[in-house]
This record gives sequence, structure tokens and C-alpha cells, in this order.
Amino acid sequence: MGNHMVNRRHLFGLAGAGGAALAVPGLLTMPAHAAAPQPPAAWPTEFVEVTPSVEGDIAWYDVSHWGVEGKGWSDTAAYYDRLPAKAEGVVTPEVWVRSRNSSGLLTRFVTDSTIFRARYRLSLATVAMYHMPAIGHSGVDLYARTPAGQDAWLANTHPAAQNVDQQMGIAVDPGERLYTAYLPLYNSPQRLEIGVRAGAKFLGAAPRTTPPAVFYGSSIMQGGVASRPGMSITALLGRRFDVPTVNLGFSGNARMEPEIAELLTELDASVYVVDSSPNMNPQQIAERAEPFVRILRAARPDTPIVLVEDRRYGDGQFVEFRRTRNAQNAAALRTAYTNLRRSGVRGLSYLSADKLPGPEELVDGSHPSDLGMATYADAYEKVLRPILKRRGH
Amino acid sequence: MGNHMVNRRHLFGLAGAGGAALAVPGLLTMPAHAAAPQPPAAWPTEFVEVTPSVEGDIAWYDVSHWGVEGKGWSDTAAYYDRLPAKAEGVVTPEVWVRSRNSSGLLTRFVTDSTIFRARYRLSLATVAMYHMPAIGHSGVDLYARTPAGQDAWLANTHPAAQNVDQQMGIAVDPGERLYTAYLPLYNSPQRLEIGVRAGAKFLGAAPRTTPPAVFYGSSIMQGGVASRPGMSITALLGRRFDVPTVNLGFSGNARMEPEIAELLTELDASVYVVDSSPNMNPQQIAERAEPFVRILRAARPDTPIVLVEDRRYGDGQFVEFRRTRNAQNAAALRTAYTNLRRSGVRGLSYLSADKLPGPEELVDGSHPSDLGMATYADAYEKVLRPILKRRGH
Repeated sequence: MGNHMVNRRHLFGLAGAGGAALAVPGLLTMPAHAAAPQPPAAWPTEFVEVTPSVEGDIAWYDVSHWGVEGKGWSDTAAYYDRLPAKAEGVVTPEVWVRSRNSSGLLTRFVTDSTIFRARYRLSLATVAMYHMPAIGHSGVDLYARTPAGQDAWLANTHPAAQNVDQQMGIAVDPGERLYTAYLPLYNSPQRLEIGVRAGAKFLGAAPRTTPPAVFYGSSIMQGGVASRPGMSITALLGRRFDVPTVNLGFSGNARMEPEIAELLTELDASVYVVDSSPNMNPQQIAERAEPFVRILRAARPDTPIVLVEDRRYGDGQFVEFRRTRNAQNAAALRTAYTNLRRSGVRGLSYLSADKLPGPEELVDGSHPSDLGMATYADAYEKVLRPILKRRGH
Repeated sequence: MGNHMVNRRHLFGLAGAGGAALAVPGLLTMPAHAAAPQPPAAWPTEFVEVTPSVEGDIAWYDVSHWGVEGKGWSDTAAYYDRLPAKAEGVVTPEVWVRSRNSSGLLTRFVTDSTIFRARYRLSLATVAMYHMPAIGHSGVDLYARTPAGQDAWLANTHPAAQNVDQQMGIAVDPGERLYTAYLPLYNSPQRLEIGVRAGAKFLGAAPRTTPPAVFYGSSIMQGGVASRPGMSITALLGRRFDVPTVNLGFSGNARMEPEIAELLTELDASVYVVDSSPNMNPQQIAERAEPFVRILRAARPDTPIVLVEDRRYGDGQFVEFRRTRNAQNAAALRTAYTNLRRSGVRGLSYLSADKLPGPEELVDGSHPSDLGMATYADAYEKVLRPILKRRGH
């Protein structure tokens, strides 16, 4: 938190408790195609007053002054890193580099501004990949909470270069709303400012402190290759369950190293999801999956753990090598799961590749499009809903 | 057709009729997750022997020597254009430019090669957009027909620059298969060659000559912003119905000009789909929709016509301007539809925006991701299935 944070207090309560209250917006006129109104969902209860930098018509708010949700650790080398500074040199260099992408981070704020800008310099010059557009790779994806309590898509940035300074969308209808901005999936802002109309009300929403669902995985978990940051698996599930998530997807480098398991044990998670098979071969899974889970279980006896099978390659119908790899990876993980359960490890769940995206839902035979991301989220939701319900979510 | 086309003959027949027969592949071993085997679908009945240019281990086949499917006209200025040469100066310059993107074109071939390359120079230097990855914008997307008769995704090119010369995927299992390659959606090859192992069997599949389903529309119809060419609306529907399609989506410039209607009447279509509202305002729709349909109906008394409502903007829940535009566009099209029917025009269908993608299924609030493309295809399929069934498909 920066020195611009003037005050931090409970402004909201579910039943009107707390300090100076913002007006809870009434039910605005709903378009014909919107979902039927539901009771307004709880907004975050803690808001932060932030001092802007006013430049002309725009008041700029530095996100680090009230915080992002989705960081497992606060002691990071750069503000938008996903692993703690101490992890450098402990995890592999490849994991470290990817941990500095801002995937899974989001920030929330309440404002009555009708316009929104984002201004940031990206840490990496590359803003897109051949299978992933710039919005998903390096964009900020903005959602707004509807009167019915749903976070619904609103706008995003369209990065073209390392410096981004853009209005997101066009002017919205007047009204005070809760907004959520998802950060880049395969890049990260060195500094991120949200711009609103100068003079508009603005409060940062403090990151939720309830135990997050923690997801460890590959490029797919990191969000490759969603079209925009709001469509990664963790973003989708965070909205569906209305819970904080921590995204520890490390493109090409999720290999169940024990040091990663040790780091995971530091997090007070509502659930651990382990989805690293796409980056591993059968021997690695056979050697590492059981020790990895045992480290988690020893440190966190009561935290549910979900093991996820390797998704099937898109070309597997035609390529023996892919079928074999998929089958052997699945067999190795299934064996580890069975061994762990037989040895008395409790609280384990298993998600089979049968529920994961098919060939049509991948872009390059490996990484899901938004269609595949939705299928992933559906599969995860089915496994996680009873788990999170038992955990009180 | 080029002078390399040595011979063109019926090699296949549904019941074994025809000339020299290729071996119809048996049911190969199916992976556990594949669909239950169905009776092998009909392959194209006409194949073309093509002379390759052999360079080292690769035999290169120029696609223009046996042809692409999806061209409404053969007398085009460039081979991969979508409008006839005579349309230049008749349609607007903006439509003309976009008609030179190869969206909706596909080529088919049979080979027992286990490797596939694509070599082409793109007509445009830009290979991606901020909301559309290079594979969709400028890539070639390769499908293979399964023993069960489905065209299933196999591989694609990953364009990085104007010249593309890449292997698509890795080596496939031995066997003779029918392959379909979808061409770039927002670019076009100046020349396109498919490379296979030198010495492998290779036959071009002649484009089907049955009346195509013809789709006129906006950027969305052109394929913006599918992750890969096989995920555009026309590609999805072409596979679902196993029929040829003609894609006349012109990004930002589908405005129901009478000259476009006149051109459409030249096509012997199984159905005309008119989905241009996203590029029009209510006044334009009110003025142009009825005359546009009347031109089609006068020339083609029996061809079904489907009018499609403007999809709703992703930010419509929060932006009055968008809701109003969507509502007025829909009202204008609905009025035109009602007037046409009341005046005795038959064979009209209407697809409401209720069935089209929602905010979560768009990338930038306007253009569908693959998730939205699948929803579009679902909506279209429901309207088109009875129509195409009546037409004998």
C-alpha cells in the first residue's frame, strides 16, 4: 500500500453497518435480454480512500494504493508479481519469469464516473502471441456489477505497444457501481493507473481476505490463450463462485517441483487445484505427484486438493504420440491419486480429461479458446462447488 | 484452374461407382474420447490429379490447380478474391478491399502423407489485430476427416510475417484421409501451396458444385474475431451441415447496398442469410432492407432468405446508446420483415438477437470469441436445419 492511502475503513455492511455509507444503487432499468433481477449481492465491505493525481479532466488512481486481489504474497519484488521475492533462485528461472506476469490479479473500485481509462507501461514489449490476441495477453478487462449482483463485461484496453493509455469503452449510464479490472495474462503493468472523470467519487475496494481458491498449473491455467483477461479459468471461477482466487499458472513450467509445493503451503487456501500435467511427462508425474500432494497435506491437513488430468491434445485422433502421452499422463496421475487415497490421504478429488475441452475448443491443439476456457470452468465448477460449499462459500 | 491439372474425373461414388477407386480407409483405432463411430460419410465424388513441384523431401501442390470451395464467382481478379472482377467500382471501395480477404474459402485434398506444410505469401503485411490472433487473421487451419465421417481439427499455421512457410502440426498416423484447409479470415494468400511428403499419394478434391448456403454480413460474418479460420460462422455451419458455403462478410461495410443484392442474385444459393445490421443504423435498415430482399426475391423466387437481427453490444447493460441502437436496429429489421411478409413475400425467416451471443461471449463488446461463434452457429443451425432439409440437404 502506498502513502496515498488516506484512510481505510469499513464503509459498507451487509445490513448497513459500518461508517459513512455510499448509496447502494437501486435497480436500474434492465435491458430486455438481461437476467431476471436477483437480490443485490454483497459488495465488498471494506473500501479505501485514495488520493488521485488529477491531470486535466482525468483523476488517475494508482492501483497499488489500494491493492490487487489474487496475490498470494504481499512481499513481492514488483507489485504485480505473483510469487514472493524470496522465491527468486528457489523456483526455476523459467517459473520465476512467468511469476512476474500479472495473470489472475484483479482490482476493484467503486465510482460514479461514467468514463474509464487505463494507463500503464508493460514490463514486456511483446503484447500478443500468434494464438493469443493483445487484449488477452496484455490488456486490462473491465467488468461492472449489475444491480442484480453479477459482474458483467464492460470494456477493455486494446494494447498496441508497451505503453498503454486508453479509454476503455464509451461513457456508461450515470450511477455508482462496483467495477472489477482484470490484469494482463501474459505480461504485467509496471505501474497501473485507473483514470476516471475528475471530481467523480472513487473508492478502492480492499482485496478480499477470505481464503482464496489456489490454482497451480500450466500455460492453460495462466490464461493461454483466452481472448481477454476476464476469460481465464480463475477469472471465470472467481465470478461464478464470487470468491478470491490465486492463479499460479506458469506457462510451460508447471512441473510439481517440491519448492512449489512448499510455497503453496504458505497460503491459507480454501482449496488447492493442481493442474500441471500438460507440462509434465509420465515419469515426472509418477515421481512427483505423490510427494507434491504429501507436502501440501502435511502442512494443510484440512485443505481440499483437486488433481486434474492432462487435457487431451487436439490432434490426438490422428497422432499416436499424442494419444500415448495423454493416456500415460492420465494413468500416472490416476495411480498417484489412488496410492494417496489408499495410504490414507483425505480430501482429494480428481477431475478426468473426459470433462475437459475437445479438439474444437482449442486454438492450436493445446491451448483453449474462450470456448475451451468455458468448458474448463464448467468442469472445475462441478468439482469445486461441493468443496467450496463445505468450506462455507 | 491451372495447366497443372492433368486429369479431372470421378474417382469416387457413394456406391463404388466411378473410375479408378482410392481405397476407402477402414475404421482406424479410435481414441477413447472420440465420438461413437458412425457410417462413413460420403467423400467428395470428384478428385483432381495435380502435378506437384518437388523440392527435396516435399511435394508442393498449388491450390489454384484444383480449386477452393466458397468462391461465389470464378472470374475473380485474384484467385482468392470473393467478389468477381467486375464488382470493382460497382461495390464501394471498402467492400472491394474486404472482398479480397479469403474468408470462407477452403480447399480439400486426399493424401496418405503424414506431414503437411503450407507455403504462402500474404497480400497484407498485418497478420493480427488487437482482438484477433494471427492464426485466425492470417492462418491456414487444417482439418482431417475421421473414419466416422467428421471433419476434426488437426493443425494450423502460426503466421508471424507476410511470408509463411511452416509445417502444420506433427506427423500423423499412417493412412489415407480427406483433409480440409480453411484459408485466412482477414488476409489472403497471393498463392497457396500445400506441401506433403514427396512420393505420397495426393489428389485435389474438386469444390462441391451443389448450391451453397450464402451468407452476407459484417465483420462478424467475415470471421472477426475467431481464433482460427475453422471457427468462423460459415466454417462451423459448413461442417455441421456438410454443405458448401459462401462467405460474403465485409468487415464494417455490410450496408445492404442494392448492387450487393444484384450480385447475390447471380448465385444459385440453397439459402440467403442476411446479417448486416451490425454495420447499419436504424434509418439505413428502414430504407434498405425491404428493397434488398425484394431484389433477391424477384430474381430468386424460391430461395429461402433469413434475416438476422443485430447482435446486442456487450456493454449494453450499462450504455444507453448501445441499448437504443440495438433496439432501434431490431425494430427496423422486424418492421421490414413484417412488411415483406404482409406484402406476400414468401420464404422469409427471422433470427432474433435473443439467440445470439451475450456479453461474456464477445471479445471487445462487438465481436464474438470462439465461444460467441459457437453460439452464433447454434442459433443459425436451428433456423437453417429445416430450411436446408426442405432443400434436400
